[in-house]
Amino acid sequence: MIHINENYLKLKSSYLFEDIKKRIEAYEKTNPGKEIISLGIGDVTKALPGACIGAFRTAVEEMGDDKTFRGYRSDKGYPFLREKIAEFDFISRGADISSDEIFISDGAKCDTGNIQELFAPDSKVAIPDPVYPVYVDTNVMAGRTNEWKDGRYEGLIYLDATEENDYIPDLPAEKVDLIYLCFPNNPTGATISREKLKSWVDYAKGNKALILYDAAYVAFIRDNSIPQSIYEIEGSKDIAIEFRSFSKTAGFTGTRCAYTVIPKECMAYDKNEKKHSVHDLWNRRQSTKFNGVSYPVQRAAEAVYTREGQEQVRSLIDYYLENARIIRKSFEELEYKCTGGDNSPYIWVKTGKDCWEFFDLLLKKANVVCTPGSGFGRCGKGYIRISAFNSREKVKEAVERITTELS
Amino acid sequence: MIHINENYLKLKSSYLFEDIKKRIEAYEKTNPGKEIISLGIGDVTKALPGACIGAFRTAVEEMGDDKTFRGYRSDKGYPFLREKIAEFDFISRGADISSDEIFISDGAKCDTGNIQELFAPDSKVAIPDPVYPVYVDTNVMAGRTNEWKDGRYEGLIYLDATEENDYIPDLPAEKVDLIYLCFPNNPTGATISREKLKSWVDYAKGNKALILYDAAYVAFIRDNSIPQSIYEIEGSKDIAIEFRSFSKTAGFTGTRCAYTVIPKECMAYDKNEKKHSVHDLWNRRQSTKFNGVSYPVQRAAEAVYTREGQEQVRSLIDYYLENARIIRKSFEELEYKCTGGDNSPYIWVKTGKDCWEFFDLLLKKANVVCTPGSGFGRCGKGYIRISAFNSREKVKEAVERITTELS
Repeated sequence: MIHINENYLKLKSSYLFEDIKKRIEAYEKTNPGKEIISLGIGDVTKALPGACIGAFRTAVEEMGDDKTFRGYRSDKGYPFLREKIAEFDFISRGADISSDEIFISDGAKCDTGNIQELFAPDSKVAIPDPVYPVYVDTNVMAGRTNEWKDGRYEGLIYLDATEENDYIPDLPAEKVDLIYLCFPNNPTGATISREKLKSWVDYAKGNKALILYDAAYVAFIRDNSIPQSIYEIEGSKDIAIEFRSFSKTAGFTGTRCAYTVIPKECMAYDKNEKKHSVHDLWNRRQSTKFNGVSYPVQRAAEAVYTREGQEQVRSLIDYYLENARIIRKSFEELEYKCTGGDNSPYIWVKTGKDCWEFFDLLLKKANVVCTPGSGFGRCGKGYIRISAFNSREKVKEAVERITTELS
Repeated sequence: MIHINENYLKLKSSYLFEDIKKRIEAYEKTNPGKEIISLGIGDVTKALPGACIGAFRTAVEEMGDDKTFRGYRSDKGYPFLREKIAEFDFISRGADISSDEIFISDGAKCDTGNIQELFAPDSKVAIPDPVYPVYVDTNVMAGRTNEWKDGRYEGLIYLDATEENDYIPDLPAEKVDLIYLCFPNNPTGATISREKLKSWVDYAKGNKALILYDAAYVAFIRDNSIPQSIYEIEGSKDIAIEFRSFSKTAGFTGTRCAYTVIPKECMAYDKNEKKHSVHDLWNRRQSTKFNGVSYPVQRAAEAVYTREGQEQVRSLIDYYLENARIIRKSFEELEYKCTGGDNSPYIWVKTGKDCWEFFDLLLKKANVVCTPGSGFGRCGKGYIRISAFNSREKVKEAVERITTELS
């Protein structure tokens, strides 16, 4: 008899954004014709940069001609893309990462979700709260969390990000093995200073722990004193994996391209404390369970690194950052405490009430969709996440409605 | 201290095609200038059909305009594609599959690799021999196989496909929970009759087992009496998952699009023998660890189902089938026993000697690359797999060289 992986039964409800979708659908059903503005899910709204479209187009034509057609290639991704990434995203920032330490993938969600497969089932996992739900749920599925009790999984170590610590979690009091960090943060929009990040690197080195550093929102950093990569911190290469994505950088949410960096010196240990290369383990995982990213998509991503592409991406991000500024300003004028929205597309608003109640208030009064903070963890209770991903026009309209309804 | 998933240490050597690549590179290094023809890895060589290119191109342009741009959408894939699949690939064959039972993905390798996550770690897994290595390796990684002993994993049940049973495995003598089947088969090229497939469906129903049916090569079936889908067999919907791909059908190996069918009535059981929908479990898995397939790629795949696309795909497959016929004929003229190559792109050749020795012979004498059968399992010893995926010109040249060198 075929039995299920019982860990799936420990999962709490469905995926956050599915829940939100259902509430919107229910509201729309009873209130047809209302124009709802979504500042909820973190999905970009503007077209791909022209440079990317040009390269995408050319590569599609190549696929239509026997002479230039491309079939299977390295699961790791094409060197043309990996080399540009190494140069522009790391070496230019003083981070010594080479192209063969980079794995191209179809999404940071996939990679942050799959990476835990490489590690022991009894690893002690530290996860921030609030947090992107994928880190938690994938560890639940893998059986690392034990049961759900009083709103948390018994077997996880939660790293609280609160008003008191400026939304930068403190180092864990106990020894942990695997640490998820995300900066600029989803959902709080907080960024981490070089000094704070160094303290995490030092902790990991001292405890032979591994940091999974999610930098999907790095393109929003405008303050040059903020580290963009964990590899800007000396000594981090043996204890950190970094995840990046073209989704938020260049509008690739529907196009699908991302990458993961695993330095050659990054190590994990077997029962006898013998070292094993995490890079090699991931390479084995990917060559067995993945077949690479669509060739034309990789060409589109490569164009991000042309001069034209760099300018277009910067102006794309500027656009969303101005949205973020407008949103944050209006909530602050309504005397809500906010974080994020300056080096991040997300604004984390302290609502002073239950967050699903505030979600419903915004939906029903202003017809604006946000994301309830509790969907990201217990510390998110009483907060909402507002996303800057929409057109200027819609953001202004949303802000106007919110200001009218909440004043 | 971060510990590894120790199951990775049980994996035998690297991925088969990596091994082959290394041998070719070594040969090329000492024999520069030789023109090597690959009939090894099953990778297509002809351009995408014109209909696909046209749709691909249009969708890229849509991504370049704010008004038609698409970001995140359902992880399951766009309805426009799922509806065409249901209609053309199933309903037209009398298989009652609806569009919402279909999950679009970026590869059958990913799906056949990831699907085992849904099931209990102590599931008894039956895997054919010879076999596509992904089925075995992903179960090794998940800890279902125990140790490697005498050329096999102790914890797997192997289903021998040999000359004696015409390369169609017999039903297992013991009770198993999870069964991998692949027809048209990779590597043997064998196809299964309706009656034989029905006996597997009956076995699964009788034992509450689940069949994972890999039909990635279905487009090569020209004999209409051969079932194309397991869902053509009555009563199979509650015990079977089917995997399909556009890779071999329409040349999408470098473009990446595939799909998996999990009927709503397909069930697995918890410890208390309570039923759970496998469709819902996979939906939860995919919405947590996957973010859908590139929109322009889904549009390109949709074009396979236009009249123009159907004709182009048929002529593409005809081309490879003619290659297969030429290859099989020439090996038969050299008095090698062959199977496959008629309703399959693969020819399975009984070599009469060690298969890596025969691989080296072909490489060094004829400069032709094949795939040694032992890479697919113990029953593959003494066989090689020849793939029909190359240009007519190269296939003819390869066959000529082989005929000259082996006569």
